Amino acid sequence: MEWKVNRSGDKPLYQQIAEFIEQKIAYGEFPPGSLLPSERKLAELLNVNRMTIVHVYEELQASGLIERKQGSGTYVSTHKWGIRPSVYTNWKKYVEGGSFLPTYPLIRRIREEAKRMENGFDLASGELSTDLFPVQALQSAFTQQTIPCDLGYEHPQGHLALRETVANHVMTYHKINTTSSSVLITSGAQQALYLITQCLLSPGDAVAIESPSYYYSLPLFQSAGLRIFGLQVDADGINPDDILALHRKHRIRMIFVNPTYQNPTGTVLADIRRQKMLEISAELGIPIVEDEPFSLLSFEDQKHDPIKSFDQSGNVLYIGSLSKVIASGLRIGWLIGPQSVINRLADARQQMDFGLSVFPQLLANQFLQSADYPDHLQYLRKQLMDRRNLIMSALREILHGKIEFTTPKGGLHLWCKINQEVDDQKLVEEGIKNKILFMPGSVFGAPNGYVRFTYARLRQKSIMEAISRFAEALSRV
Amino acid sequence: MEWKVNRSGDKPLYQQIAEFIEQKIAYGEFPPGSLLPSERKLAELLNVNRMTIVHVYEELQASGLIERKQGSGTYVSTHKWGIRPSVYTNWKKYVEGGSFLPTYPLIRRIREEAKRMENGFDLASGELSTDLFPVQALQSAFTQQTIPCDLGYEHPQGHLALRETVANHVMTYHKINTTSSSVLITSGAQQALYLITQCLLSPGDAVAIESPSYYYSLPLFQSAGLRIFGLQVDADGINPDDILALHRKHRIRMIFVNPTYQNPTGTVLADIRRQKMLEISAELGIPIVEDEPFSLLSFEDQKHDPIKSFDQSGNVLYIGSLSKVIASGLRIGWLIGPQSVINRLADARQQMDFGLSVFPQLLANQFLQSADYPDHLQYLRKQLMDRRNLIMSALREILHGKIEFTTPKGGLHLWCKINQEVDDQKLVEEGIKNKILFMPGSVFGAPNGYVRFTYARLRQKSIMEAISRFAEALSRV
Repeated sequence: MEWKVNRSGDKPLYQQIAEFIEQKIAYGEFPPGSLLPSERKLAELLNVNRMTIVHVYEELQASGLIERKQGSGTYVSTHKWGIRPSVYTNWKKYVEGGSFLPTYPLIRRIREEAKRMENGFDLASGELSTDLFPVQALQSAFTQQTIPCDLGYEHPQGHLALRETVANHVMTYHKINTTSSSVLITSGAQQALYLITQCLLSPGDAVAIESPSYYYSLPLFQSAGLRIFGLQVDADGINPDDILALHRKHRIRMIFVNPTYQNPTGTVLADIRRQKMLEISAELGIPIVEDEPFSLLSFEDQKHDPIKSFDQSGNVLYIGSLSKVIASGLRIGWLIGPQSVINRLADARQQMDFGLSVFPQLLANQFLQSADYPDHLQYLRKQLMDRRNLIMSALREILHGKIEFTTPKGGLHLWCKINQEVDDQKLVEEGIKNKILFMPGSVFGAPNGYVRFTYARLRQKSIMEAISRFAEALSRV
Repeated sequence: MEWKVNRSGDKPLYQQIAEFIEQKIAYGEFPPGSLLPSERKLAELLNVNRMTIVHVYEELQASGLIERKQGSGTYVSTHKWGIRPSVYTNWKKYVEGGSFLPTYPLIRRIREEAKRMENGFDLASGELSTDLFPVQALQSAFTQQTIPCDLGYEHPQGHLALRETVANHVMTYHKINTTSSSVLITSGAQQALYLITQCLLSPGDAVAIESPSYYYSLPLFQSAGLRIFGLQVDADGINPDDILALHRKHRIRMIFVNPTYQNPTGTVLADIRRQKMLEISAELGIPIVEDEPFSLLSFEDQKHDPIKSFDQSGNVLYIGSLSKVIASGLRIGWLIGPQSVINRLADARQQMDFGLSVFPQLLANQFLQSADYPDHLQYLRKQLMDRRNLIMSALREILHGKIEFTTPKGGLHLWCKINQEVDDQKLVEEGIKNKILFMPGSVFGAPNGYVRFTYARLRQKSIMEAISRFAEALSRV
């Protein structure tokens, strides 16, 4: 809740809150018949004593604005404002309907805490900390930008100059040959994945994903009615032979992989397996979706060329993004693939949102071409490596023998196995009490007893304290 | 196609084109087995003689890169690049699958022509001409902008400062009471509509829309599996009593309306009908989606308060947008409604694209608060009214008696009835030959013999010529 009570004013808190709710009811934001938060919950949200809320609800009930139903909760009255009872929209039915599924409750809970928590330790959010965003360089790109005269709808695939820059970028950094007409600019990798599931797959289709993987956390596969099957990840990523077995059983229609510094395990798909995967994919006629948000965040000298770089038959849809290397708030990603696929997805995207704003596209284009960009990448890699080193030594020191992990050679995440039986949900709740957030393994389809720590989101000075707090939470479950 | 032949170089055209296609095949942009454009079509796209393309395809066939199948077309060869035949993805099957439906062919045809046509007359695209975008004011807002330090993911509902500004804006201009926590910032009105159909309605649900209306042109209703029913528009908009009749027959679950300067008819829903509509909606418990992109573009003194302004029970979801009053390339719109609906849609949007970029939100916020904004609105209204007057006199002069219309009192569109039998499709094709684009009535669910002219997209000096060309096209069908 964005509204806050005014603690320095004359008006009693209960009165401020009552007026606030009254206003929300008058504006139709809390419509007749809608459920209000419980006393406990509202007290928590507004950071006031529960007795204050008891008082608020008594006042509102006395004025007839709300009704309390034993054992069921507090509702906005249906015969207020001169409206006859039951003549209003039953929004609950609408909100719970719809074919698009909501975010999983545990993930939502962690995200909400991450937004709300003050002075907490966030090892859960899969993004950079604010000090790693190249704010000054972006500001300079921003102020130098001349905005174009034609501010009408963009080309359905996105701003041409940016598509050309992206085509150069993937050649320079990833040895991918492409041209601007086969690039679709998307709102991060997320929109690329969403478009693929909505436009290229049909309900009932089977798809293969890495297990564990980030994809498990996305209800968009279920929303599209897809059946998902896991390919086990070992130290070298998935085993391509498993695709054959899976396909024989379920007729797989698409394979989703994140080969480099995989989320959450941090593993790299071995080069020989990349080759093999492409061969199998071509042989079976199953396309690969290669999602590569972390590959530029390398702490090693060895380069890992994406599968797309040796794909000459257009079997691979390649997804890139600036969210993890520049800033997630920029919302710029891309998808590279056969012309017919790009056209189909671009057309669908027009109907969903009529394309991206031209402004972040101009900005991304300018920044990618500037000398600041390689400098920023170098700085970012160094910073992330330092944080990775710090979190590993903190874990070794504080949780020696209680936790296992392998050293990630790039990316944002450290994947840990806890050497004791734990209940994921309980561990998360203990963590929240202790102001430490992390992602439990179950979110990624792993069994109980795994956690993902994102060392990118936390500043160096906080890492030791964060792991101490985690250890405390762990000791309590 | 973005690539162009180089007419001033030494290399023959056919060789340039052959190399271009070879490259596209090598990069997997035209995968094995994919269909290439016909000779005629490719010649048109690249603006070269058809014989040049005949030559290109002969060369490529001789080198084994493409295959020609009698009566079926030209395909990329499947046994090139050392790949065994039939080992590649059959993208055609993927592209034609997927539950999300493509744009209607006639609309796509007109849009592609609008992008491609040089020196043509565009009365089809529903947006402002480039000279009406407040480029200078936006440039000044842009250069003054200090970008925030936290460039991470935004709040799921959008940038807080912009939501506050929007809440003030709808109060000032439309007498709508709301607070920032009930505002969802969207990628134009389009994304708001998309989210509603995906998250609040289920396949098989019946919805009522105006007939004719813009909504007919949106396959997103069909993509969501909705059944759509029309409410006839007369000089005062739809008749609320028709909702009752429709509901009795089909159990309507939602009503979509564009009450002010409706697209395409330009009509205004009478105030008394707005009241009546809200009453009926509340009584039946059917929510109203009120889409208001044009209401600030008024040529009259009378103000039309939106239905939302007298909705105290949260029966109305209100959609606003800056696309038609500032610039469509900004991609900023909003949805205002009950808290539970806003939460549900914001959560779903996170999964689809992880929210809007912060940059256009900052820019929109700054511009909406600046003194430039009301000045711009005033200028825009004057310009649009002049164009409306011009197009009406051109029609009266050139097509006297052959065409009928009523004067729109605001907005971008003029809706005309042609007093003769015409085939919509043929008229469009004749128009394209004559370099004049417009939207045929069938796109909006109207019978043959109606057209929509968007006078906003064409500069004053071109309007007379555009109507002459239309008259010529009309005389030929």
